[in-house]
Amino acid sequence: MKTAYVLMAHGSPDTQWQQPFQELEAHLKQRAEARVEMAYMELCDPLLEDTIANLDKEGFERIDILPLFFAVGRHLRKDVPAQIEAMSERHPGLSIQLMPPVGQHPAFTDALIRIIEEGISGQNVD
Amino acid sequence: MKTAYVLMAHGSPDTQWQQPFQELEAHLKQRAEARVEMAYMELCDPLLEDTIANLDKEGFERIDILPLFFAVGRHLRKDVPAQIEAMSERHPGLSIQLMPPVGQHPAFTDALIRIIEEGISGQNVD
Repeated sequence: MKTAYVLMAHGSPDTQWQQPFQELEAHLKQRAEARVEMAYMELCDPLLEDTIANLDKEGFERIDILPLFFAVGRHLRKDVPAQIEAMSERHPGLSIQLMPPVGQHPAFTDALIRIIEEGISGQNVD
Repeated sequence: MKTAYVLMAHGSPDTQWQQPFQELEAHLKQRAEARVEMAYMELCDPLLEDTIANLDKEGFERIDILPLFFAVGRHLRKDVPAQIEAMSERHPGLSIQLMPPVGQHPAFTDALIRIIEEGISGQNVD
């Protein structure tokens, strides 16, 4: 199945907030073999709905949405599933999956361990 | 320097929201060699201020706060630095550092790559 990954962040009215996500997207596009797009639930461009519509036009068949959230709150329990339901009706050829939030993935715990351990070795060098 | 790491999440009034952070803390306490505590900026216990006060009592000299945030917004630019300034006055023996948010660390990008690649290989197995 022709699959794309959409990293979904919340979005913010703060104009400086979006920049690190754009940098993250640039790094991921360089490094990941899969097609990766960054999109926002609300308040920032591109919105999730627009990104999904573009990927549908390009002929993708499956889209896995990886929420850049640490935990499941109201957004991931209710709002995003409702958005996905509406998008699935609009794009019947697409299978759209909501992955667990990045904060609940073992790779994330490993990353925190690495950050803490690098912090400690950084201090030893000082 | 006797150093502790405080992972700081925002906090939420949603009672289910906190559980993954508590699980994350339990994993990190098992795996990290350094002292690691989870604390919240607001709305959840333990609050950052209480965790810092306890670590001061225990004789820690340096505390590195790792924000479980993806990007720097108003909280990390203004609110948390103000909290740290107030805590530094209250605990003059402590050096309190605010680390960049976890989302801006290369280890985090690596984790996303791993999640995406595991997603792909998981699909191949199906």
